Amino acid sequence: MKIYADNAATTKISRTAVEAMLPYIEEFYGNPSSLYSFGQKAKEALETARASIAECIGAQPREIIFTSGGSEADNQAILSAAAIGKKSGKMHIISDQIEHHAVLHTLKKLEKEGFSVTYLPVGTDGIVKVEDLRAAIHEDTCLVTVMYANNEIGTIQPINEIGKICREKKIIFHTDAVQAVGHIPVNVVDESIDMLSASAHKFHGPKGVGFLYARKGIRLTNLIEGGAQERGRRAGTENVPGIVAMAAAFVESVGHIEENAKRAAALRDRLIAGLSEIPHSALNGDAVKRLPSNVNFCFEGIEGESLLLLLDDKGICASSGSACTSGSLDPSHVLLAIGRVHDVAHGSLRLTLGDDATEEEVDYIIRSVKEVVEYLRGFSPVWRDLCAGKGNFIL
Amino acid sequence: MKIYADNAATTKISRTAVEAMLPYIEEFYGNPSSLYSFGQKAKEALETARASIAECIGAQPREIIFTSGGSEADNQAILSAAAIGKKSGKMHIISDQIEHHAVLHTLKKLEKEGFSVTYLPVGTDGIVKVEDLRAAIHEDTCLVTVMYANNEIGTIQPINEIGKICREKKIIFHTDAVQAVGHIPVNVVDESIDMLSASAHKFHGPKGVGFLYARKGIRLTNLIEGGAQERGRRAGTENVPGIVAMAAAFVESVGHIEENAKRAAALRDRLIAGLSEIPHSALNGDAVKRLPSNVNFCFEGIEGESLLLLLDDKGICASSGSACTSGSLDPSHVLLAIGRVHDVAHGSLRLTLGDDATEEEVDYIIRSVKEVVEYLRGFSPVWRDLCAGKGNFIL
Repeated sequence: MKIYADNAATTKISRTAVEAMLPYIEEFYGNPSSLYSFGQKAKEALETARASIAECIGAQPREIIFTSGGSEADNQAILSAAAIGKKSGKMHIISDQIEHHAVLHTLKKLEKEGFSVTYLPVGTDGIVKVEDLRAAIHEDTCLVTVMYANNEIGTIQPINEIGKICREKKIIFHTDAVQAVGHIPVNVVDESIDMLSASAHKFHGPKGVGFLYARKGIRLTNLIEGGAQERGRRAGTENVPGIVAMAAAFVESVGHIEENAKRAAALRDRLIAGLSEIPHSALNGDAVKRLPSNVNFCFEGIEGESLLLLLDDKGICASSGSACTSGSLDPSHVLLAIGRVHDVAHGSLRLTLGDDATEEEVDYIIRSVKEVVEYLRGFSPVWRDLCAGKGNFIL
Repeated sequence: MKIYADNAATTKISRTAVEAMLPYIEEFYGNPSSLYSFGQKAKEALETARASIAECIGAQPREIIFTSGGSEADNQAILSAAAIGKKSGKMHIISDQIEHHAVLHTLKKLEKEGFSVTYLPVGTDGIVKVEDLRAAIHEDTCLVTVMYANNEIGTIQPINEIGKICREKKIIFHTDAVQAVGHIPVNVVDESIDMLSASAHKFHGPKGVGFLYARKGIRLTNLIEGGAQERGRRAGTENVPGIVAMAAAFVESVGHIEENAKRAAALRDRLIAGLSEIPHSALNGDAVKRLPSNVNFCFEGIEGESLLLLLDDKGICASSGSACTSGSLDPSHVLLAIGRVHDVAHGSLRLTLGDDATEEEVDYIIRSVKEVVEYLRGFSPVWRDLCAGKGNFIL
């Protein structure tokens, strides 16, 4: 069996998206900035895509800026809000400890430039407490940036409440919604979101394209200077095929969002129940307030990397955390933030199911993980010590 | 007849590039940062693409950083060199008046941050004088950024000489080679180039992807912060299909560079000869030191926009200058820099032939432009005044 269970890292581009894209690769390849009709055809496709995407999140078309992906959108959103804040002397930002590195590293850069950043803690459930946010707000807070759903443990933040507080306090609210949009309903108006980042390849669109929603009236700082594309807010010839495919994938995902989420959540819960049978294991993050396709476990006494390699041998593609930080030996900052100790955090497994996952596949994953964990524990000196009563089990 | 003669704005993606890309869309869609073999397959494709691209310009694989296009590469190159300069108190940059806006606007941003920038003039031939460059160098010059070939008039700069001077003076030399690579031979070692920007869709690769060459030892400043992709120099999930397609297109273009350039230059010269027969017209930029496919003319007494729309009716896709600045009413900064007055600069036409252009097409373009220019002059009050002896012809 071959099971791709790493849909939080990237998804397969949908047939609909490929078919929407191909004419703009093969036939209507004109530069949308051109005057002639052939270029205008590309321009129209771009604007149709913008309108479709806007509609999917309750925004206006002119509030959507196309980017090369979620990281670029995060960078531009945060730097823009910081520039707005700086102009009126407001140099405090509120974020949290489990953000994606595209957010965290941008904030670190701003700290070097004199901004102060409060990183809100999360509970063991992986969720920010609204009271903590309220208490962290100062007179000079210019931005709150809290992700919609976490990329590792899938926990969903109280965006609606955070949005309301920010709107009331007149603070810009940005959310990295890369893992959320296309998977759970998001509406920027209902949820008082001022800026939102998204990435096409996380909802069955192509890699290398994303978008930034910025509410009308928010002045963006350009990350990429140059031509007058995107109404002067993002230079560079537009990736028309990529953008058209992103819109097609987004409309398709949002169109089936309720049924997909319901189906995925049932499989997710089956997977969680199965893996919970493994002794000294624990689900990471809240069991309910999490993305419908996300399962993240810690298994005591094993190394995540070996686990992944053995699962790969069994045809299962999974990850230990974020794809963006693989290669690093540090344990996940997200798992540390929810209170996992270093050793336990190292033995983590993220399984993110696709829309086409089946019960049979889930059962195969459960069997495989059980086997592999047992096998690895057989070799683990840490595990042997624990079993011999040297030291205490944590999970 | 349908003729696409705006290849400087964008090119059609080649069959080879599409075929190279499709497996990474349809089948091997894994995230290259993943540990499992399925992701490693994407990672290998990425590294093979990097090596191919490096080889095409005489660089080492690790000196190639994938970006979302030429504008991003320009921005990152210039900001990186500026950051290096600033560290040692060197805050003077040398560029020229005919750069692309991706360079000029980035330099404007640096000027606001305290850098001083010398914008070298160009002659009526559209070429920077090496003596001017030499004279402009100060002790605190940290960067020389001069484009390889101009995007509007196609003139090729004395890169080799500029490179030598910069190397001798230990100044970082960046060149925006977006219009050059894949069309004329470029070798970063032979030409002493420290940084080079390129964009795939200008050499029959896809839109939304490009690369930055940065010589080993040059520390890059990140434009997009986040994950550890591109060895920590450019965050965001890699656009694997786009990168693979870019490499395929680049290898193909470079493989046929001599024959394509020879063929294009003959057609270009035929087009120039034909259009030169139009009274009161003039070629913009040097006739010889120019890209093999670039023709750029000014026609006195007409508006470039009307010319383009009427050519569009005749099935000819052309532009008045850069695609990135269309929509702007200002005359081209490039044409002003080579000494064209405002009125004349407004009546410009850029024709950039494709590799598949034919003599028949060139002759059709010549006939069409002649007809359209004559037709438009018939309506032009400026032209009527000139013919009536009120005012003097400039061209």
